[in-house]
Amino acid sequence: MISSKLYGYAGEILRIDLENFEVRREKLSKELAKKYLGGRGFNVSKLYYEVPKGVDPLGSENKLMIATGPVAGTGFPIGARLNVTARSPQTGLLGDSNVGGHFAAELKYAGFDQIVIEGRSNKPIYIYVHDKEVEFRDADGIWGLTISKAYDAIRRELKDWRVQIALIGPAAENMVKFSGIFFNLSRPAARTGLGAVMASKNIKAIVVRGDGYVEVADPKGFERFVEEVEEEVYSHVQYWPRRIMGTSRILLAANRLGILPGKHFTKAILDYAFKVSGEMLALKYNVKNRGCFSCIVPCSRFFIVKNGRFAGTFGEGPEYEALGGMTVRIGNSDLNAALKAINILNDLGMDVISTSEVISWVMELYEKGLINRSEMDGLDPRWGNMDDVFKLIEMIAYRRGFGDILADGVVSAAKKLGKGYEIAFHVKGLEMIQADPRGLKGYGLGFAVASRGADHLRSEPFIELSDDPELGEKMFGEREATLRLGIRGKGKLVTYYENICAIVDSLEICKNIAENMDIITFDKAARLINVVTGIDLTSDEVARIGERIVNIERAYLVREGVRRKDDVLPTRFLKEPISEGPSANHVVELEEMLNEYYGVRGWDPETGIPRVKKLLKLGLEDVVEDLKKHNVELN
Amino acid sequence: MISSKLYGYAGEILRIDLENFEVRREKLSKELAKKYLGGRGFNVSKLYYEVPKGVDPLGSENKLMIATGPVAGTGFPIGARLNVTARSPQTGLLGDSNVGGHFAAELKYAGFDQIVIEGRSNKPIYIYVHDKEVEFRDADGIWGLTISKAYDAIRRELKDWRVQIALIGPAAENMVKFSGIFFNLSRPAARTGLGAVMASKNIKAIVVRGDGYVEVADPKGFERFVEEVEEEVYSHVQYWPRRIMGTSRILLAANRLGILPGKHFTKAILDYAFKVSGEMLALKYNVKNRGCFSCIVPCSRFFIVKNGRFAGTFGEGPEYEALGGMTVRIGNSDLNAALKAINILNDLGMDVISTSEVISWVMELYEKGLINRSEMDGLDPRWGNMDDVFKLIEMIAYRRGFGDILADGVVSAAKKLGKGYEIAFHVKGLEMIQADPRGLKGYGLGFAVASRGADHLRSEPFIELSDDPELGEKMFGEREATLRLGIRGKGKLVTYYENICAIVDSLEICKNIAENMDIITFDKAARLINVVTGIDLTSDEVARIGERIVNIERAYLVREGVRRKDDVLPTRFLKEPISEGPSANHVVELEEMLNEYYGVRGWDPETGIPRVKKLLKLGLEDVVEDLKKHNVELN
Repeated sequence: MISSKLYGYAGEILRIDLENFEVRREKLSKELAKKYLGGRGFNVSKLYYEVPKGVDPLGSENKLMIATGPVAGTGFPIGARLNVTARSPQTGLLGDSNVGGHFAAELKYAGFDQIVIEGRSNKPIYIYVHDKEVEFRDADGIWGLTISKAYDAIRRELKDWRVQIALIGPAAENMVKFSGIFFNLSRPAARTGLGAVMASKNIKAIVVRGDGYVEVADPKGFERFVEEVEEEVYSHVQYWPRRIMGTSRILLAANRLGILPGKHFTKAILDYAFKVSGEMLALKYNVKNRGCFSCIVPCSRFFIVKNGRFAGTFGEGPEYEALGGMTVRIGNSDLNAALKAINILNDLGMDVISTSEVISWVMELYEKGLINRSEMDGLDPRWGNMDDVFKLIEMIAYRRGFGDILADGVVSAAKKLGKGYEIAFHVKGLEMIQADPRGLKGYGLGFAVASRGADHLRSEPFIELSDDPELGEKMFGEREATLRLGIRGKGKLVTYYENICAIVDSLEICKNIAENMDIITFDKAARLINVVTGIDLTSDEVARIGERIVNIERAYLVREGVRRKDDVLPTRFLKEPISEGPSANHVVELEEMLNEYYGVRGWDPETGIPRVKKLLKLGLEDVVEDLKKHNVELN
Repeated sequence: MISSKLYGYAGEILRIDLENFEVRREKLSKELAKKYLGGRGFNVSKLYYEVPKGVDPLGSENKLMIATGPVAGTGFPIGARLNVTARSPQTGLLGDSNVGGHFAAELKYAGFDQIVIEGRSNKPIYIYVHDKEVEFRDADGIWGLTISKAYDAIRRELKDWRVQIALIGPAAENMVKFSGIFFNLSRPAARTGLGAVMASKNIKAIVVRGDGYVEVADPKGFERFVEEVEEEVYSHVQYWPRRIMGTSRILLAANRLGILPGKHFTKAILDYAFKVSGEMLALKYNVKNRGCFSCIVPCSRFFIVKNGRFAGTFGEGPEYEALGGMTVRIGNSDLNAALKAINILNDLGMDVISTSEVISWVMELYEKGLINRSEMDGLDPRWGNMDDVFKLIEMIAYRRGFGDILADGVVSAAKKLGKGYEIAFHVKGLEMIQADPRGLKGYGLGFAVASRGADHLRSEPFIELSDDPELGEKMFGEREATLRLGIRGKGKLVTYYENICAIVDSLEICKNIAENMDIITFDKAARLINVVTGIDLTSDEVARIGERIVNIERAYLVREGVRRKDDVLPTRFLKEPISEGPSANHVVELEEMLNEYYGVRGWDPETGIPRVKKLLKLGLEDVVEDLKKHNVELN
C-alpha cells in the first residue's frame, strides 16, 4: 500500500522576493506534481501563469526559476538534472535551459524542489540556501569576477567544499544576451540568456547545501527498477563510446554523415575532422572521467593540453556543441586553440553555441567581402584565425567596440549592421546548433517548432540516425520517419519525441541516456513515477503530461505573438542544397513536414495555434480563458 | 626507387631436424614471398608439398611450422600475428592456428620468418632460438609442468625476461587431441590439436629472442600508410567497444540477435546473458588493458575476481569463445566460476572451444537421460554444475577415466560411447564455435567449407551482422548477401572474405581489426605490401594470392579424401529451427548456398574439387600433377 504522501519530492517550493528580501516556503501540491511532474513542467507552467505577456525580461517583473524533479537525489542512476527558466532577454520568448551535475540533488537535500526568484535586489548579492534556511549575502567582493575565481571565492568564504554553486560571469553582468548560469564550473545553463536575467536581479550566485534526504514510495520496486535500467544502460551498444567520449563523439559521426556546420554551414564535411574530434580528445587529451550525481555513465571528461602554445590548458568537457562550435563552425583545425577558446568562454560565462554563430557569421561576411576590418576595430576574422577569436570573445563579454554589436545575438547584430540577415542562422532569435538540418530532416522540423528557438533538445529525434525504416514502420507506421533524409512521418516523429523530452526534462533525467538510448518510454516513466512518488499513472496519462507541457509552452509563445510564420528555418537550409558528402543535394522540405506536424499536434495549420479542443483535453481551461483575454485567434 | 632486396622479411627460414638435432637456415625466396606473402601462406603451401598424404600426425613425418609475415616487427599497428601449422591429429586434415602477442615480432628480430620442425626428439627438450642461433635444451625438469609453471621455470633458467615463449601443457603431453600451444601464457594456438603435435616431437617449448630489426622498403610511404590506418582505426565506431571489451563484447550482442550456443545450442537467448557478459567483465572485473606488439587497440584485458568462492582468481582475457564456452554453452550463469574454469583450461593447455563442446555434449546427453552417472565415474554433469566441470577438465587433460573418452574430441567420444553422434557439433572433426549458424547464415556456409573444420576464422563475414542490404548490393550485387538471415549471395560473400582472410593471415595482421572493421581491402593490402616489402602487386594480384592459398588448402583436404559430402553442418542446424528470439524459425539452407559457393569458387559442384582450370590459373600446376598422381577425380 502506498500512502497519500508525496514521496520523491522535497515537498516545498522556495519563493524569494528580492524587492523586500523576503522568503516564503510553499507546500508542493500533489495536483501540481500530477499535472507537471517537476523541473521543466513546474517552471514553464509557472512562467505562463505568473509572468505576464510582454514584461521586460531584464526588469523586476520577470521571474527566475530553478526546479528539479522527483528522482534527483534518490540515487536513480541517470536523474541529476534541473531546469532554469525565465522570460528570455535574447528571444523575448521562453527562456529555458537544462543542466546536470550535483546541484539538483543538493537542492533537494536543502529542502526544495523549486526556487522562484522574484523582483530584483538593489545591490549585488548571492543567495545561500542551506537546510531550508536562506541567507542573502553581500556580493560586492565577487561581482566582476570570472566564473572560476568567483567559485573559489565563495567556497573560501563559506568554508564549505560541499556547497553546490550556480554562478554568472562578466558576460552576464554586462547583459550579454546569450550569457549563461554556470553550475559546477563548466556546466552551463547558457541558452536563451538566463545569465543576463540573473544579473539583472543583481544575483552573482545561488548556493545550495543540505543534509536532508529523499524518500521513495516503494523502495523494493525502486531497487528493481534501478537494476533493470542499469542492465539496459550497461548493455547498450552505445554505452562505452558515450562513457568514453560523451557527446564529443558526435563530431566525427557528423562528418561521416556530411552534416557538419563547417565554416558557417558552407562545408558539411571537413578533412581535418578527426584532428578535432572527440576520438582525438579521448586518445590524446583526456585524463579522467566524471559523472553527474549518482550516474553510471560518467561521460564528462577532464582534459589537459600537453604541448604547444597552449600547453597546460586544462578543464572539464568539452561537449560536442562547444567542440564543434570552436572548431569546424569557425573553420579552425587547431584543437588546442579550440580548447583554450572554450575555457575562455566558460570562464566569462557565455553560451558557446550563440557565440559560435555570431563569430562564424562575421567570418562568412568577411570572407564574402561584406564587412571590412575598419568596421571591426581592425580585426581580421579569417576562418580559423583563433587569435582574433580569443579577442572577439572578450570583446563580446565586456561589450567592447565591435563586441558590443555581437553581444545581443546574431539577429540584433544583423539589424545593427544592416546586413547579413539572410545568413543569420537562428530560429525565433535563438542561434542554430552544430548540425545541418539538411541532412537530418526530423531535427530540421524540430528546430523550426522548438519552444525556445533553434534547438535540438526539445525533441532530439536521435532515432532518425539509425536510418532503419523498420523502426519507423513499427513506431509511426511510416518507413521514412526513421530515415534521416526522409520527410514523411516526421510530424509524428517530432511530436512523439517532443512529448518524451518534456517528460524526461520534467522528471529531470538525462536526455542523452534516457531518450537517445531509448531507455525511458512513457511506460517506463509511469513505472518510475510510481515507485518514486507513489503517484499512479498509466502510460497514456504520462504521455498526456508531456503533451500538456509542450502545449502550455506553445501557448506561452502564442500569447507573445508567435504564429506559424515564425516556425521557420534560415533560407540556406530551405533553398541551398548541401554540395558534398552523404547528404549532398538535400534541403529541408519544411512546409510539408510542418503540415503533418500541426495535424498530429491538433494545432491550427493556418496559425500554428493549439485548437481549443486540444487545450481543453489537456486540462488547460485556464489557458484557453487567458488566451481569449489576449484576443488570440482561437478556434 | 625500390631495390630488388626483400624488405620487411627477416629473410631466412629455420629448419630444425630433430632426428639428428641438425639446424639449417634457408634463404627466403622472393618467389615464395610473391606467391604466398607469409604466415599462413608459407605454412600451408609447405604442408601441401612436404607432408605427404596420410602420414601419422603424431609421428615423425609430420612437420610443425611457425611462420609470421612481412609486417610483424615493423611497428605497423595491427600486425603482430603468426600461424602454427601441421597435419592435425584431431581431424587428420589441415591443422592450423593463428595467434597474436609478442612472439611474431621477436621471431623476426631473432632472424627468421618461419621455423619448420621435422622429425622427433628422443627426449624432452625445449628449443631456444636467439639471434640466429639454436640451442636444444633439456626439458626434463619442466616436462609435466602446467603452462604458467613452465613459463616461470624457463624464464628463470634463461635469466631473461624478454624471451618470448610458446609452450605446451599437460594436456598436450597426454596427447589430448584438442590441446594447444600457448604463447604469452594465455594466447593459445589451440585449435586442431597442435599442442599434441608439439608434444609428439618431445618439445615442451620454443623460445625466441633477438636483437635484430626489420627494414621497410619505403619508410616515408610506410609512415603515411600507418597514419592513415591509425586514423581509420581510431575513428571507427567500433573502436572503443573493441578496445574496452575485446571480443568478449560479442556475448551480449549474440544474445540480442538470438544466436547464442546456449545449453549446447538448445537456447539461442538466455536471461542471464548480461551477468556473464563482456560488459560485466569491463564494469566489475577488468583492471587493465594490454595490446599485442605495437597495437593501437589494446583489446586484451587483465581481470580479477573480487569476491565469493573464487576471489583472487586473476588472469588475462577471456575472449568471447572462452567466455561463451564456459558460460552459456554449458548452462553456467556464474561468471566467477567460468573465469576459474578458463584459467584451469589455459594452464593445462587445451582448446576451450572443443572442451566446451565435449562437456556440453555430455550435458545434453545426460539431461536427455542418454547417459548415466555410472558411465561417467559418478559425475553429475547437470547444466552449469561447475564443480563437475572443473573435475572433467582435469580428467580430460590427464586422460583419467571418463576424461579419456572425451580427450580425442566429440566425434571420437560419440564413436567410443556408441551414442550422441547426431548431436556431436563439429565439421570435419573440429568442434563448433560459440555462434548458432541458423541466425548467421553466411557464417554457416563458412563453417561448412572452412579448410580446418567448423570455424569462423577462415571467412568471418562479419559484415553480415550489419543487416544492411545496401552494402550487399554494392559489394556483391545481392541485397541478401549482407543480411544475416538471407541466403542469396552468400557464396560470393564467403568467397570474398575467405580470400581476404587468407591475405590477412598471411600478412599476419589482426583479423579483428583488419577484416572485421574493413580496414584492409585487397587494394590497401597491395599498398601495404609495397611500402613494406618493395614487391609491387596490383589489387587483383593480391586477391589472386588469397584465392591461391584457399585453393591449395582445399587441394590438401581433397588429397586426404575430402569431398562435397564433407562440407556439411550438424543436423540440428539444418533441420531444427531456432525456437525463440530474433532468429526464431530459421535453419541453415546449406545446399543452396553451397551450390552458389562452388560456382563462385570454380570448384566442381558434384565433388567439391577445384577445377583444373582454376588451379592452373592460380599457378598451381604442380598441385594438379600431384592430385593426378593420387588419382583424384579432376576435371
